[in-house]
Amino acid sequence: MARTLAARPLTAEAFAPFGHVIEAAGAPSFFINNGRCARYHDLARPDIRGAGGAVALSVGRSEPVSLPYTLVLLERHPLGSQAFVPMAATAMLVTVAPDDGGEPGEPVAFVSQPGQGVQYRAGAWHGVLAPLAEGPADFLIVDRVGSGDNLEEYPLAKPYLIVE
Amino acid sequence: MARTLAARPLTAEAFAPFGHVIEAAGAPSFFINNGRCARYHDLARPDIRGAGGAVALSVGRSEPVSLPYTLVLLERHPLGSQAFVPMAATAMLVTVAPDDGGEPGEPVAFVSQPGQGVQYRAGAWHGVLAPLAEGPADFLIVDRVGSGDNLEEYPLAKPYLIVE
Repeated sequence: MARTLAARPLTAEAFAPFGHVIEAAGAPSFFINNGRCARYHDLARPDIRGAGGAVALSVGRSEPVSLPYTLVLLERHPLGSQAFVPMAATAMLVTVAPDDGGEPGEPVAFVSQPGQGVQYRAGAWHGVLAPLAEGPADFLIVDRVGSGDNLEEYPLAKPYLIVE
Repeated sequence: MARTLAARPLTAEAFAPFGHVIEAAGAPSFFINNGRCARYHDLARPDIRGAGGAVALSVGRSEPVSLPYTLVLLERHPLGSQAFVPMAATAMLVTVAPDDGGEPGEPVAFVSQPGQGVQYRAGAWHGVLAPLAEGPADFLIVDRVGSGDNLEEYPLAKPYLIVE
């Protein structure tokens, strides 16, 4: 039987152990363009490790999911951070887990607001891209491209049922 | 009197001299997440030059513009590329110009579709962020942070009036 996990709102503070939230929150860092643009500056830096890698911008067009959602797999990328930023006003389900001796520990689930993206730290366990949308949704992906073994998958022996 | 410039649709081909269009266009590069996500891979790479710089993710919340639009300034960033990707389904006015002996040459104006972002090449002359929206719009910015003189502004002696 699946274990149940309640998703909570995505906040920078709660997400900090796993990465950064990319959003225009609080006071802007400064203004540019003659005051017409508020800049929320340097919210996260891509962290690319190992030989043969580079930072690149890609787009992922993902099928949507809905809650309750059955989490069956976590993955991580030891050689680099990975950012997902919605290219439309799309919420997403963001599931992460601390590392527990090379395996994911107890997961934590978040629901983002439209206008929020995330960057997972290098090596942070996380679920796959999961837009809470009516149809396919586009996300900007900022991650490592190039040679090297940068994907570790962990199928869960017992799935989690993520609920609102 | 302002010179008139007609904006054209933003396409990867027409924009190529100035940078890259970030979009899910054509056939995906491959599928991830058990086929649930189409990945348009490695569309552009941040190009960061000079000592003391790093790639960072920021958010810009910009006041909107509308057409006809009066272009009075171009700028460029000699030390790095700069990407702007809408975080909602927002079109934008993208104005660029070739370099002509250290000054901008004849500008070219594009109107993007929702779902399209751009990355300007390092040193490419371009106008400021100009969302064609009803209200303020958020954009993910991927550019260089850190020390160094990375902004060159060029006020136009004669403005351009950009029309549809």
